[in-house]
Amino acid sequence: MEQLITNDFLLQNDLAKTLFHNFAKDMPIIDYHCHIDPREIAEDKNFENITEMWLKHDHYKWRLMRQNGIDECLITGDASDYDKFIAFVKTLEASFGNPIYHWSHLELKNYFDIDYELNSETADMVWNICNEKINSGKLSAKKIIKMSNVKCIGTTDDPIDDLKWHKMIKEDETFSCNVIPTFRPDMLLNITNEGFCEYISKLSDSVSFSINSFEELKKALICRMDYFNKLGAKSSDHSFDIIPFSIASDTEINEIFLEAITNHKINSEMKEKFDTAIMLFLAKEYAKRNWVMQLHFGVTRNTNKKMFDRVGKDAGFDRILSQVSIENLAKLLDSLDKDDNLPKTVLYSLNPNDNAAIDTLCGCFNEASVKGKVQHGAAWWFNDHITGMRNHLESLGNYGLMTSFVGMLTDSRSFLSYTRHEYFRRILCQFISEKVNKGEFVKDINRLGKIVKDISYDNTYKYFFG
Amino acid sequence: MEQLITNDFLLQNDLAKTLFHNFAKDMPIIDYHCHIDPREIAEDKNFENITEMWLKHDHYKWRLMRQNGIDECLITGDASDYDKFIAFVKTLEASFGNPIYHWSHLELKNYFDIDYELNSETADMVWNICNEKINSGKLSAKKIIKMSNVKCIGTTDDPIDDLKWHKMIKEDETFSCNVIPTFRPDMLLNITNEGFCEYISKLSDSVSFSINSFEELKKALICRMDYFNKLGAKSSDHSFDIIPFSIASDTEINEIFLEAITNHKINSEMKEKFDTAIMLFLAKEYAKRNWVMQLHFGVTRNTNKKMFDRVGKDAGFDRILSQVSIENLAKLLDSLDKDDNLPKTVLYSLNPNDNAAIDTLCGCFNEASVKGKVQHGAAWWFNDHITGMRNHLESLGNYGLMTSFVGMLTDSRSFLSYTRHEYFRRILCQFISEKVNKGEFVKDINRLGKIVKDISYDNTYKYFFG
Amino acid sequence: MEQLITNDFLLQNDLAKTLFHNFAKDMPIIDYHCHIDPREIAEDKNFENITEMWLKHDHYKWRLMRQNGIDECLITGDASDYDKFIAFVKTLEASFGNPIYHWSHLELKNYFDIDYELNSETADMVWNICNEKINSGKLSAKKIIKMSNVKCIGTTDDPIDDLKWHKMIKEDETFSCNVIPTFRPDMLLNITNEGFCEYISKLSDSVSFSINSFEELKKALICRMDYFNKLGAKSSDHSFDIIPFSIASDTEINEIFLEAITNHKINSEMKEKFDTAIMLFLAKEYAKRNWVMQLHFGVTRNTNKKMFDRVGKDAGFDRILSQVSIENLAKLLDSLDKDDNLPKTVLYSLNPNDNAAIDTLCGCFNEASVKGKVQHGAAWWFNDHITGMRNHLESLGNYGLMTSFVGMLTDSRSFLSYTRHEYFRRILCQFISEKVNKGEFVKDINRLGKIVKDISYDNTYKYFFG
Repeated sequence: MEQLITNDFLLQNDLAKTLFHNFAKDMPIIDYHCHIDPREIAEDKNFENITEMWLKHDHYKWRLMRQNGIDECLITGDASDYDKFIAFVKTLEASFGNPIYHWSHLELKNYFDIDYELNSETADMVWNICNEKINSGKLSAKKIIKMSNVKCIGTTDDPIDDLKWHKMIKEDETFSCNVIPTFRPDMLLNITNEGFCEYISKLSDSVSFSINSFEELKKALICRMDYFNKLGAKSSDHSFDIIPFSIASDTEINEIFLEAITNHKINSEMKEKFDTAIMLFLAKEYAKRNWVMQLHFGVTRNTNKKMFDRVGKDAGFDRILSQVSIENLAKLLDSLDKDDNLPKTVLYSLNPNDNAAIDTLCGCFNEASVKGKVQHGAAWWFNDHITGMRNHLESLGNYGLMTSFVGMLTDSRSFLSYTRHEYFRRILCQFISEKVNKGEFVKDINRLGKIVKDISYDNTYKYFFG
Repeated sequence: MEQLITNDFLLQNDLAKTLFHNFAKDMPIIDYHCHIDPREIAEDKNFENITEMWLKHDHYKWRLMRQNGIDECLITGDASDYDKFIAFVKTLEASFGNPIYHWSHLELKNYFDIDYELNSETADMVWNICNEKINSGKLSAKKIIKMSNVKCIGTTDDPIDDLKWHKMIKEDETFSCNVIPTFRPDMLLNITNEGFCEYISKLSDSVSFSINSFEELKKALICRMDYFNKLGAKSSDHSFDIIPFSIASDTEINEIFLEAITNHKINSEMKEKFDTAIMLFLAKEYAKRNWVMQLHFGVTRNTNKKMFDRVGKDAGFDRILSQVSIENLAKLLDSLDKDDNLPKTVLYSLNPNDNAAIDTLCGCFNEASVKGKVQHGAAWWFNDHITGMRNHLESLGNYGLMTSFVGMLTDSRSFLSYTRHEYFRRILCQFISEKVNKGEFVKDINRLGKIVKDISYDNTYKYFFG
Repeated sequence: MEQLITNDFLLQNDLAKTLFHNFAKDMPIIDYHCHIDPREIAEDKNFENITEMWLKHDHYKWRLMRQNGIDECLITGDASDYDKFIAFVKTLEASFGNPIYHWSHLELKNYFDIDYELNSETADMVWNICNEKINSGKLSAKKIIKMSNVKCIGTTDDPIDDLKWHKMIKEDETFSCNVIPTFRPDMLLNITNEGFCEYISKLSDSVSFSINSFEELKKALICRMDYFNKLGAKSSDHSFDIIPFSIASDTEINEIFLEAITNHKINSEMKEKFDTAIMLFLAKEYAKRNWVMQLHFGVTRNTNKKMFDRVGKDAGFDRILSQVSIENLAKLLDSLDKDDNLPKTVLYSLNPNDNAAIDTLCGCFNEASVKGKVQHGAAWWFNDHITGMRNHLESLGNYGLMTSFVGMLTDSRSFLSYTRHEYFRRILCQFISEKVNKGEFVKDINRLGKIVKDISYDNTYKYFFG
């Protein structure tokens, strides 16, 4: 069978090959933003079969299968794992140009030694090889992490989480990967949600004091941030459709908060004021702890109500928001910066049109001795493909200092996704080599190698841990 | 003279050439969206000369000529056909990078066997060769369609049209191309227009009952859809600047309708409610008939009032609307889908910035057994050039399943425009070959050939007729 | 040391090289939009050292240095010139992909005969070579202009400027470069600014009559435009964030004006009406004088308040505005055009997403005998890099007549920036050669050479002086 994933996959010239093989390939991974369940690491989870590993939680693949006309029964329904696998294979072989084609084959290569194409003809063979290896116990969660040279994993965690799995992971002295929590207070920025009041009550339980004012809410959050900090947290994460920015007095914010936990009559104006106050407070606290603040925006979730009712959220019905978010974001950053409260910040928009506006915004907020204090994060989610990553790198260079970029992350629920770091590094090396070969930068292999290593690992380490 | 249009025009490597010559070239054409006048087919129109064929209705060319500083007299005015031709040639030879340069030369090659450049030196020769062939009768409407291997043409028709030319075309048994009407109710979505009331009156005549309520309007439209359906219609078409979405009660919609046909005092809010109600009604009916709903948006027409007064609409004074349309569109689709009323839908934005947002939206609405139920239509109008088509294909692949794309259409008023399908296919084959040659997809010529054939014809056939 | 800037820098094939060396290289420069201080030309300024030439006023470089974590003291502070130079060099060698890397090295090559990379190792050598040459007197303002083959410079000037330096420059018969003023009435479109009233008072002084009504304001502006015209002015320039368009009666405008110069209570609605009235008036006057109207938009300035208070405006804290400006712009142009008051106009957006919308807008307003009456100006400011320029050219060709483009400008405060014309021409020749080598345009070297010469110089000359 024809080899699809060669050693030089995506590397089209000698310089690209040298950069990847001599500088990128062996750098460790800091996967600072993902959605891995820490329990699965703590318990060193073993998987049933390739369908569980690939298809059980992967809404990227579900979307593509639906677009291929496949019945929901074979996607999230109760068809057999084998039938689901075959349905996926039919989609995979039709997915010309889609990154899932590359991710899947890189995963087959790196974890199953399969370098040929997975298609209708090879499906059964691949099914057997994969499941045999999975059943051998060689691909438990911890083993995959070790194989993948992952030095640090940042999970995504609710402020009220007790982080017991993180503690348990730390207790295993044979496992050296540093698994740290990330503070993600989604529910706090969801004040109109029915569950808000109940959430505040749980938060109150977690800190063992009652929360009857905005001041007490802030006190509780400080407790939780300190708790996360003790467990090694280095960053927070937020997701918005549109960034809020509307300033109100402390009194007004407190009134809004009281309204939210009693009568629940919150209009969009009140919500924006509350969200702004929360963000300004949290960001200041992040800065105090030298945490990185991650802001994700430009997404509309759960676009399909019928399917939301059927299969719930994070199921492949999200999309790019076509509206601008940058002006409020600029005000938020400026408002923090003018009082020296701006933490290191990473910005991610789901809309690739925002690249240039974000990159010029990043250039407006810097600080002596920090390289690239405000970062434009790696091409996010739907943009995590060759075009998206190249355009992102191109934009970083055109509008600022690409060499200070803190690099890739998986944003994934799957342990096999560490190959996305390899995917990114191959694309990075090819991207750099093309410019050098066109004479756009000096051909000094050590200088170029350092850029590759910085973006692959060293910048990330310094930014989060330095 | 140097050959400009070679057999391998736009094909830069062996794989691209193989894909085009062995798989794409001979596939028939389904031109499912165009503005051809069916009368010209029915009467098998013969043309006077190349100026009539090329310049009489082509506002793409008019725009370019104006930008070249040419006097309106030589464009839409009363200069001689020869002088207009020469004025166009002067523009053509200056149109570096513009698709009209390619379209025109492909047309010269395919219909007049001229493969060299049309420029000031060759103008007279080309004028003579073209007109001789035109006058020979070998380039009548039906003959061009046959020569071009066109199996189906979807014209654009008003609901009140009696479709007599379509009937007449069907009666010619020697002419096998299936010319079908497309339901385009522009006037219905133009409730603030002075002519609205008169239009309702004509619609009433066409169905032979009076229309004095929204219920009766819907009844009339059903009659007309059934009539179109009998004549083979497979789709509808709508054009918006911004997509409407504002829900109102049946009573309120009826009141707006009555207001529109009596006092005509309709504000923008009322218009949006009415438009939404009409769209929800029509879409549901399209779904019942298994029609495809085509939605065009992102355009501002008649930007130049002075020239509108002088030469009217569709005269080359339209432009890309720089505002977002996607959020309402998403609500419209979701509102239909949640009650299982969403028809197959093709979305076209004139703004190329919308590509990624549209492609992720398409991925949110699918149906078992239909490949790519909601489609992102071919790069439209101003974007119908190499960059536009490549970016469209790239975006389809990056964000979804490019291989389910229903492919090209001419959107043209001219019989010579079938070459745009060839233009698209050459670009498609080159696009695919580049990715394969970079190792991004398996180099399996039959698999790749099938993708090319699917996008050139087979997907289109299944989507509209399957 | 390895040569970085070769003769064929950025030229990757024989055609590109021929086009550049035989057609582009020796064309003179019309730098129709820059921010050079005319006093420095008049006084034939000599510089202290390379830090003064490169870093004293260049906020592009400051931004990049800040992003590299460099302390403000080494940027705009009181560190020594040598230390600032070294701090810049450290940033330069890290600026992979940024145009400053190319600009700086082209400047070293053209004015200092240094063709190797400036980096930490070569820094001292470069410092010495540059300063020696600067101190030799061979790089005075006028000498640089002569060396650079600059035939015309359009400075940027306030309407109340007495233009005495322009007069003084004209008196030097040994200096043939035509240095002309550009009418830039920023303060007039700043009616909410505290200094507005004082400005009107100064304007009054400059025309020697009092300004107590909008009519008198217009009379005063006419005087100043006539004065600029006498000194050779050929264009005006405006900068907006978002283009205004809101029509009011003459009476209302007069009331707004009186309010502005008395009580200063101007809200945003009043400002938009006043700005619209001023623009409609000025544009009409520009048209009468056959001036070109330049409109810059899509920028948010002074995003960082803390640094604004510290280092003031134009200091590297500006960014791309992510909101649309095109719809009002279209109304403004149409409103002028319908009464035949539209001057030749050049549009510049800082947002590269606007390319297609602007290019289709340009195509809507033309005039017999003028090629490209409404122009999409050269890739502006943050977009002045290879990607930005190529995308701009690509868009010009795709959506209109690239060959009528009036070409490059420096927009710079520095005398060394004329190399940006060379940068642009190299990119232009490479861009053209690629399309020709792919068979997309006839390979007629003289025709292609003419396109290159037109865009480099001849179109510009005809558009501004023809």
